[in-house]
Amino acid sequence: MGKKADIGLIGLAVMGQNLVLNMNDHGYAVAVYNRTASKTEEFLQDAAKGRDTVIGAHTLEDFVGTLAKPRKIMLMVKAGDVVDSFIDQLVPLLEKGDLIIDGGNSHYPDTTRRTRDLREKGILYIGTGVSGGEEGARRGPSIMPGGNEEAWPLVKDIFQGIAAKVEDGSPCCDWVGQDGAGHYVKMIHNGIEYGDMQMICEAYDVLHNGLGLTHDELHEVFAEWNEGELDSFLIEITRDIMKTLDTDGKPLVTKILDKAGQKGTGKWTGINSLELGVPVTLIVEAVYARCLSALKHERVAASRVISGPEKKIEGDRKAIIEDARKALLASKIVSYAQGYMLMRETAKENGWDLNYGGIALMWRGGCIIRSVFLGKIKDAFDRNPALQNLLVDPYFVSVMADCQGAWRRTVARAVTAGIPVPAMSSALSFFDGYRSERLPANLLQAQRDYFGAHTYERIDRPEGEFFHTNWTGTGGNVSSSTYQV
Amino acid sequence: MGKKADIGLIGLAVMGQNLVLNMNDHGYAVAVYNRTASKTEEFLQDAAKGRDTVIGAHTLEDFVGTLAKPRKIMLMVKAGDVVDSFIDQLVPLLEKGDLIIDGGNSHYPDTTRRTRDLREKGILYIGTGVSGGEEGARRGPSIMPGGNEEAWPLVKDIFQGIAAKVEDGSPCCDWVGQDGAGHYVKMIHNGIEYGDMQMICEAYDVLHNGLGLTHDELHEVFAEWNEGELDSFLIEITRDIMKTLDTDGKPLVTKILDKAGQKGTGKWTGINSLELGVPVTLIVEAVYARCLSALKHERVAASRVISGPEKKIEGDRKAIIEDARKALLASKIVSYAQGYMLMRETAKENGWDLNYGGIALMWRGGCIIRSVFLGKIKDAFDRNPALQNLLVDPYFVSVMADCQGAWRRTVARAVTAGIPVPAMSSALSFFDGYRSERLPANLLQAQRDYFGAHTYERIDRPEGEFFHTNWTGTGGNVSSSTYQV
Repeated sequence: MGKKADIGLIGLAVMGQNLVLNMNDHGYAVAVYNRTASKTEEFLQDAAKGRDTVIGAHTLEDFVGTLAKPRKIMLMVKAGDVVDSFIDQLVPLLEKGDLIIDGGNSHYPDTTRRTRDLREKGILYIGTGVSGGEEGARRGPSIMPGGNEEAWPLVKDIFQGIAAKVEDGSPCCDWVGQDGAGHYVKMIHNGIEYGDMQMICEAYDVLHNGLGLTHDELHEVFAEWNEGELDSFLIEITRDIMKTLDTDGKPLVTKILDKAGQKGTGKWTGINSLELGVPVTLIVEAVYARCLSALKHERVAASRVISGPEKKIEGDRKAIIEDARKALLASKIVSYAQGYMLMRETAKENGWDLNYGGIALMWRGGCIIRSVFLGKIKDAFDRNPALQNLLVDPYFVSVMADCQGAWRRTVARAVTAGIPVPAMSSALSFFDGYRSERLPANLLQAQRDYFGAHTYERIDRPEGEFFHTNWTGTGGNVSSSTYQV
Repeated sequence: MGKKADIGLIGLAVMGQNLVLNMNDHGYAVAVYNRTASKTEEFLQDAAKGRDTVIGAHTLEDFVGTLAKPRKIMLMVKAGDVVDSFIDQLVPLLEKGDLIIDGGNSHYPDTTRRTRDLREKGILYIGTGVSGGEEGARRGPSIMPGGNEEAWPLVKDIFQGIAAKVEDGSPCCDWVGQDGAGHYVKMIHNGIEYGDMQMICEAYDVLHNGLGLTHDELHEVFAEWNEGELDSFLIEITRDIMKTLDTDGKPLVTKILDKAGQKGTGKWTGINSLELGVPVTLIVEAVYARCLSALKHERVAASRVISGPEKKIEGDRKAIIEDARKALLASKIVSYAQGYMLMRETAKENGWDLNYGGIALMWRGGCIIRSVFLGKIKDAFDRNPALQNLLVDPYFVSVMADCQGAWRRTVARAVTAGIPVPAMSSALSFFDGYRSERLPANLLQAQRDYFGAHTYERIDRPEGEFFHTNWTGTGGNVSSSTYQV
């Protein structure tokens, strides 16, 4: 064997295969290894046929031997123990300064741990989010690398080379941050993806079941939406799904069981948000909506005994469709605002310095949530890198001003007609809470003080001064105990 | 010293003190110990003055020495390391068959671990929820013990003696289950408490800020509500809070800062639900509402730049108030249904055999969520111990049928007026989802299959058969790939 491989990849499932082909198309020689050797052979004979700079290996020793130094090895294997197992097998075969990259869907605390453990052994480590599905991996994914920053120069050219590009040629890949920051940002991406998908389903429910649009009409609606502010991969595929027919000529989507699966990243996002106390309501409602959909048998049984309104929405069809579009856009802005709130809090918690505009750019193309909309988020952070919240950026303020009437009407219609819109209505409640100088939590604090002496602060006293009232004090003179600290 | 103490209690904060007095009132001799000895002296000189069967000890050795065998020691200390530290100090002083009880707010997995560790050492262990605040601890709390079942006979009489009683004399205390089941059920209690409080705050916001009711009028409203189906401790104290005045004669609640605190049990409930995939939407929205309220400065800033409708609700006051009452009742039913769904799933996960009617009875009196309503839940499980979901019990079906129009109107009014009702609207979305034979998750599955080849099931094929479609297949003949498994 002549030339050494520029990079090696372990794990030849579809994502791994496509990344290899993508790298190879960009001129990189790639060594490949798969635990089941037949899969390697199959790949070399089939998808990689005729590519003499895709080099198969049947043992890890051979595999490592084909790599140019410092060696760069990318794992595209199942998250969890499998990653640790490969790391354990690889480390004895590597030298200081070599690099292991985990491109799977690892949970970010695992990546933080692995980065630190390997640093002690002199091995560089990157945990990177890769999004875009099969097609993205093949043609240009979004790549979100984090971990040991010394490793970045070793793979920057490869990663930015194979990544998706936006209109001006900028790659949808940049260094995210230390520890598990890359996988963390991928997790948030996936959480946002849960939200985006749920919102589209709600719009579909409102327009199909409520307003009675056919799938042909919905195809037109989503096609039109995809030309404007909602222009995005998920709206685009929804447009295509609407016109995809089953063998009997009926829309295929109507034959699909309404029982959503999930793989965990949405739940992780929700747990992360609860641990840090950041109200990421829309994503969590989207996760729960999948859980509820999965209770198909229970729902069918319940539908037989629980009454409700006829799911019918009537009125000016054009206006109701446009209201739904604006409801979707407004809800989406809230969802991204919440996602960014969570990233900011996690960064603070971990001492990470995240580039928020750069993250928007990484998501702008290649990945599942790619959209024109993310360009607007990038712009907002370009205008003000210290932006406290997307909802107070002038552009988003004006979009929300334009959309909110339509949004309220859409939610009110759905609520009246008995069509569940958990994501849209939860986002609206959040929006109304966020823009409220005062919330009714004063009563909640009074209750907590009443039964648990948890104390409260006062609007007419400096924050940090705590008061307790003996609420049950009889005789009326409750106020006498008000000013205790 | 003559007679030995029946039980010992460590930790003389207010809950501990009140439990001691309560036990002593019921004829039990109680030994007491506090890490800070002055606190013990203070208690003996003050609240426990004149009670010669409350016995102070200044060392753990003395404390243990005063106890009748088998010794029963109840910890009322801060959850976490402090509990482990006391256990470590106590174990060498105890004999096989002695019992340690943790009456604090421990996280249930810790209780499971401690129960198992101590079992190996021959020491019995109970982790028990105690709810009812200071007043409950003194006059009759709700007590939810779980852990090592052999220990139950040792304290059953004491616990059921001091617990709250319902009308027919049944104590609000019974054995919950093994491991951390007692603390688990207390955690769910607290989660439900978060939800109940948030819903009341939303009703307050709708009626005060929206409809313009004064606090005097609200006092009357809550007083009236407390006479009917909503009769409960939290409505009762809300009634009282409405008429409590500050020194200047204005309602004290209007002076309280709208920034809610929390201690973690709501978050734990949310995390538990996400881990198990049970849609406990209302509780989590309530937790997030507290988080959002805590962002006071951000909200104030946002309120200056984000526009919205005037928070005004107009119409027949009496009808709007009654609608709000029904909205609160309906949302509450959903919240409890969700809490029970979560308990059922956790019980399955841990192999616990929980007595669902018994839990309703334990919560019926003494604790913060005590209410007439819980009697209805008890009745539902008496009618059908295997009840799948509260929402399909005939009584609750009829209440929901009666309330849902009012509930929809209330949410629609709030949504239109810009008043955040995250708990009420989230509960309504859940209700509408739960009673839906079909949800739009078919589109979601189509999307997942489109971009990630995640496959889907079909409504016209048995569940468990999975299909993948090559959605991007050009030429129109997409259906040819539909029947791949």
